[in-house]
Amino acid sequence: MNSFGNKFKFTSFGESHGKGLGCIVDGVPAGITIDESFIQEEMDRRKPGQNIYATSRKEADKVEFLSGVFEGKTTGTPIAMVIFNENQKSRDYTNVKDLFRPGHADFTYFEKYGIRDYRGGGRSSARETSARVAAGAIAKLLLKELNIEVLSGICEIDGIKSSNTNFNFAKTSEIYALDENKEEFQKEAIIKAKKEHNSVGGVAFVKVKNAPVGLGEPIYQRLDAQIASAMMGINAVKAVEIGDGIEASSKKGDENNDQMRAEGFKTNHSGGILGGISTGADIDVKVYFKPTPSIFIKQETIDINKNEVDCELKGRHDPCVAIRGSIVAESMLALVIADMVLLNMSSKIENIKKVYN
Amino acid sequence: MNSFGNKFKFTSFGESHGKGLGCIVDGVPAGITIDESFIQEEMDRRKPGQNIYATSRKEADKVEFLSGVFEGKTTGTPIAMVIFNENQKSRDYTNVKDLFRPGHADFTYFEKYGIRDYRGGGRSSARETSARVAAGAIAKLLLKELNIEVLSGICEIDGIKSSNTNFNFAKTSEIYALDENKEEFQKEAIIKAKKEHNSVGGVAFVKVKNAPVGLGEPIYQRLDAQIASAMMGINAVKAVEIGDGIEASSKKGDENNDQMRAEGFKTNHSGGILGGISTGADIDVKVYFKPTPSIFIKQETIDINKNEVDCELKGRHDPCVAIRGSIVAESMLALVIADMVLLNMSSKIENIKKVYN
Amino acid sequence: MNSFGNKFKFTSFGESHGKGLGCIVDGVPAGITIDESFIQEEMDRRKPGQNIYATSRKEADKVEFLSGVFEGKTTGTPIAMVIFNENQKSRDYTNVKDLFRPGHADFTYFEKYGIRDYRGGGRSSARETSARVAAGAIAKLLLKELNIEVLSGICEIDGIKSSNTNFNFAKTSEIYALDENKEEFQKEAIIKAKKEHNSVGGVAFVKVKNAPVGLGEPIYQRLDAQIASAMMGINAVKAVEIGDGIEASSKKGDENNDQMRAEGFKTNHSGGILGGISTGADIDVKVYFKPTPSIFIKQETIDINKNEVDCELKGRHDPCVAIRGSIVAESMLALVIADMVLLNMSSKIENIKKVYN
Amino acid sequence: MNSFGNKFKFTSFGESHGKGLGCIVDGVPAGITIDESFIQEEMDRRKPGQNIYATSRKEADKVEFLSGVFEGKTTGTPIAMVIFNENQKSRDYTNVKDLFRPGHADFTYFEKYGIRDYRGGGRSSARETSARVAAGAIAKLLLKELNIEVLSGICEIDGIKSSNTNFNFAKTSEIYALDENKEEFQKEAIIKAKKEHNSVGGVAFVKVKNAPVGLGEPIYQRLDAQIASAMMGINAVKAVEIGDGIEASSKKGDENNDQMRAEGFKTNHSGGILGGISTGADIDVKVYFKPTPSIFIKQETIDINKNEVDCELKGRHDPCVAIRGSIVAESMLALVIADMVLLNMSSKIENIKKVYN
Repeated sequence: MNSFGNKFKFTSFGESHGKGLGCIVDGVPAGITIDESFIQEEMDRRKPGQNIYATSRKEADKVEFLSGVFEGKTTGTPIAMVIFNENQKSRDYTNVKDLFRPGHADFTYFEKYGIRDYRGGGRSSARETSARVAAGAIAKLLLKELNIEVLSGICEIDGIKSSNTNFNFAKTSEIYALDENKEEFQKEAIIKAKKEHNSVGGVAFVKVKNAPVGLGEPIYQRLDAQIASAMMGINAVKAVEIGDGIEASSKKGDENNDQMRAEGFKTNHSGGILGGISTGADIDVKVYFKPTPSIFIKQETIDINKNEVDCELKGRHDPCVAIRGSIVAESMLALVIADMVLLNMSSKIENIKKVYN
Repeated sequence: MNSFGNKFKFTSFGESHGKGLGCIVDGVPAGITIDESFIQEEMDRRKPGQNIYATSRKEADKVEFLSGVFEGKTTGTPIAMVIFNENQKSRDYTNVKDLFRPGHADFTYFEKYGIRDYRGGGRSSARETSARVAAGAIAKLLLKELNIEVLSGICEIDGIKSSNTNFNFAKTSEIYALDENKEEFQKEAIIKAKKEHNSVGGVAFVKVKNAPVGLGEPIYQRLDAQIASAMMGINAVKAVEIGDGIEASSKKGDENNDQMRAEGFKTNHSGGILGGISTGADIDVKVYFKPTPSIFIKQETIDINKNEVDCELKGRHDPCVAIRGSIVAESMLALVIADMVLLNMSSKIENIKKVYN
Repeated sequence: MNSFGNKFKFTSFGESHGKGLGCIVDGVPAGITIDESFIQEEMDRRKPGQNIYATSRKEADKVEFLSGVFEGKTTGTPIAMVIFNENQKSRDYTNVKDLFRPGHADFTYFEKYGIRDYRGGGRSSARETSARVAAGAIAKLLLKELNIEVLSGICEIDGIKSSNTNFNFAKTSEIYALDENKEEFQKEAIIKAKKEHNSVGGVAFVKVKNAPVGLGEPIYQRLDAQIASAMMGINAVKAVEIGDGIEASSKKGDENNDQMRAEGFKTNHSGGILGGISTGADIDVKVYFKPTPSIFIKQETIDINKNEVDCELKGRHDPCVAIRGSIVAESMLALVIADMVLLNMSSKIENIKKVYN
Repeated sequence: MNSFGNKFKFTSFGESHGKGLGCIVDGVPAGITIDESFIQEEMDRRKPGQNIYATSRKEADKVEFLSGVFEGKTTGTPIAMVIFNENQKSRDYTNVKDLFRPGHADFTYFEKYGIRDYRGGGRSSARETSARVAAGAIAKLLLKELNIEVLSGICEIDGIKSSNTNFNFAKTSEIYALDENKEEFQKEAIIKAKKEHNSVGGVAFVKVKNAPVGLGEPIYQRLDAQIASAMMGINAVKAVEIGDGIEASSKKGDENNDQMRAEGFKTNHSGGILGGISTGADIDVKVYFKPTPSIFIKQETIDINKNEVDCELKGRHDPCVAIRGSIVAESMLALVIADMVLLNMSSKIENIKKVYN
């Protein structure tokens, strides 16, 4: 249950403060050039400790390839990547060892498994998402061969919404803001929350450009269903929206339908997906992150013996998980698209003949 | 790709105007009493033609069991259920045969497969969801053995939001409205749109009561990810939210965290899921439906030869798919919970010993 | 767990004496012409009651299509096929209802599920294999598009081995014998056993001609592993062999290696599979069937209350299950190959470009 | 496609002469004590370089745990294990780089993927099986909690068959021979072949003791089908037999049926499996290995440009792969049983109530 994908599939492992974490990416077609520096750049976009808007925990997040690449190319065999943990502060966990931090998975993991690695959240730590970014980078290299691009940015922080969508600006923004005019206010909101030992929520916007028509396997591996699963499965995500999703639910049919002309759809309210299958238009997804549960304000909770206790956290945390989360969302979207690209190949007998004849 | 679930798994088949549709439910534990009248009642909640708020197509949606039940009990073997189509108006499809109805899957199916059953949407018709309700009814009979209950209702139509949540009222409401004070206005909005040959969107609220702690398989079969996939995979759904989801993204950490006392969580902003695992609190999900794409207003589109044409639909359609869709959402949620109940059994070695010793 | 295959996947349902049985075949590419008469011919090869070498139970085994085919072609949606049971003798089951027939699955199903449909073996009856033949016929129609052929015949009955392999003769032989010179002796052995109220074992030989190189997904969905699983999963099969399999285990390396020349392999000891991947040579499989467990000689057994009782069966049974079993083996092999054909499509990036460019 | 198992699932990675290999074991229940020395002992049974009957390549096969174990116990999260390759002779591969070694997967991998890691067979090397042994050792620790034991030994080498089955002797034998009276002759056969630069085939016998009744998921994840898949998927295996398998195909029904008395089955011709489900009797499996394809005799082959060339291998190889292969077979059997133990838990509603009430 630590695997994602059907044909382009990855399985992740690792805990926040264990020896290391990583993943095996299986089903990667042979013959793709693996640009290790590109993969490291992707890792660097998510890695912690880069500025004041993120946790101060420093991790190089250096990816080591153990298999699957030979003379710079994929061989069709599984690609194993490991990221060794470096900055495992051998600190004292006495204050969190036995209690359940509010908003965290401490309680649920303990109840489910009867045991948990309490160091930094163990397996439930967002640190696991570094493996998703590594796998996502491989997916992107596949998509690049087909000229498919995946982009992301932050469209809302602490209720401050973007008015425009500038992915180029997002690339250079410390908080991956999509709107250069809102970035400053969004940054201020984060810093204010941080000073108050609190945290803020946010929303990421993720887009696929140039996806072919036909991706998505109805009825239950629909493209939208797979995207929803991928996004909702990211730590702290509590809602997912395709195209005009939420707004669409209060619109009329004639306002929401995307009419067509010879050159394509006149609008894209559907977010590039109809009947669970890509339309060829941009695939647009919004991902809603809750505020980081790790705050430094006293909270009420219980311990593993069901005693009521106060929880006073210390340590290093992101004041807004949506920021680095947007990179994870982008990676997961790349993984979904890569998987659907492979699955869709056998939709018609004529495609099969193209490969075998 | 027409299967859903891991251990409690169903596979559906069938087209809107074909011979019939149905499903095979696999992984159902042996020894569950199958109350066929309960299953038919569930079917009846979703079936068309019941009132003016739904399509006038009449279908008995009578379920026939072909296997898996012996002397009134499940045997552990696959349960096949078939619903034969009765009201397949042998009407003229000339006007839709070659064009792509806006907002529908006509274009994407045609591009993906190079062929499509154009009669009533074929496989992409919401009629397929009757199979999900049949499967969901079996899931509910399993959940009943563990006293787990799944409920649903409509919390918003055409922008008119419910102020309270009365599942008992919803059961008797023709539009499954959760708020007795808003039902009338919501009904009016539907009728108004219908008169204007238009349609409206809506939002369903779905809840699980008495779910055990521990459901959900991290990291990628998390309970929330599975729910998101199940819900987004329903026809016309474009957004899914767990707990306070969307609102949470503009809140502070101290407002959103659910603190704990000995008797349980003080609040339930998380919607009963933390770290992808159920907390034991109510599981709360909101499902956003777009307005029915089938409207009777002239629209621009293209045909299969890429010629620009006008689309003027006739026929019978739901003016608001959210209504009957809420029953599908409830069924899918039951299926997810049943699946997770089975998957979670082996989380601890002590559970395994309980079964084998 | 009633599904087989990864991408070309079928799920079967049904019991020996229930309403009917059948399957859903999912993942069938769109655009394949479905020749219903061919499918029925395939069914007829396996159906009971055709001659004195098989059970006298008569079943038309008429396949009804419920979905997935439109205007004679596959649409990419799931194909549901049902075979209604006709000859369910409403006979008295008192003598087998509570006891476990030796060599049958009665005991194991009862222990596993705590309940069983005792009529004719219920789900564990070889009657379920009619669904595999229906699904296999669809697979064959796919393979035909690529000029891949699957053949079968009987190479041994009651220890009487074939000396040559004549698939054309097998097609016309009542016992599907591969050796026209041995057929008579093999028939005699069957009739002798039948007269003695006993049964005989046998061996089927199954072959794929013209399979492309490259089928099989290492390491754990290898072609040989999938074939082994498919064959061992057939009722009464207790051993599976690829190429020279058993003999190879007592040979030397230089005797067993298949050396190569420009025109291909000089020999085919490997049975067309190296490293779990097809070599392009014939794929050769032997399938070993135990004698039918249903015999009419008094046997010792116990009942569901663990009382020791005598078992005296009556009824209609195949004196040699290998015969009709060979058709099932052929169908399963077609299903494996079809699945592997689809899976292999994405092995190289150049294949993917062929489909998308 | 590098994963095995359904609920107790492992995914392996790594090439013979890459950085390292290993696996992720997912679905391991929490609370199992991980005895690292036991795991290393298991590895040592398979590791190369131990005596003259195996390859002289020396590898410590030291397992490093990266995740999933906390304070000596499993946590329910994935267990990642890595074995770094040490003895990667940086030797000259010129002689094998471009040609296809007879009996090996060189040709098929090249055709399938268009590229291959030619160093020591790359991914297709039997070295990958060390990951299976590591995973199998975890499975054994689970089975030990339920008192289930898995045993193996060699029952035939170069046609020299064992007359008795002494698993205790096998544990101490350098060639894991089951028959102390045949061991010497079997050893001689190996040494003789080695001197002649040739290799020999062999047969392993694998047994499960004390398996509970009810393991195996009909119809297509039957216990026998899963075992067949697991065994046939081992390098160099070409046939698999359950119980009296091959012999059974030439027997009569009354000879082969296992009759029952109150205390259990009177015989065990079925090898502990009926209808694909375990009977509670010993599960008996025979695994047939071809002779090692790596021999040092000149052979005819072609190169990647289809030129006819001679192949003269050098290097270090096992003269009989069955020996170390038997340990792999034992490990795979443990993995199958562990998986089936978990899957079977939900067969009856009463089991589910045991866990949740």
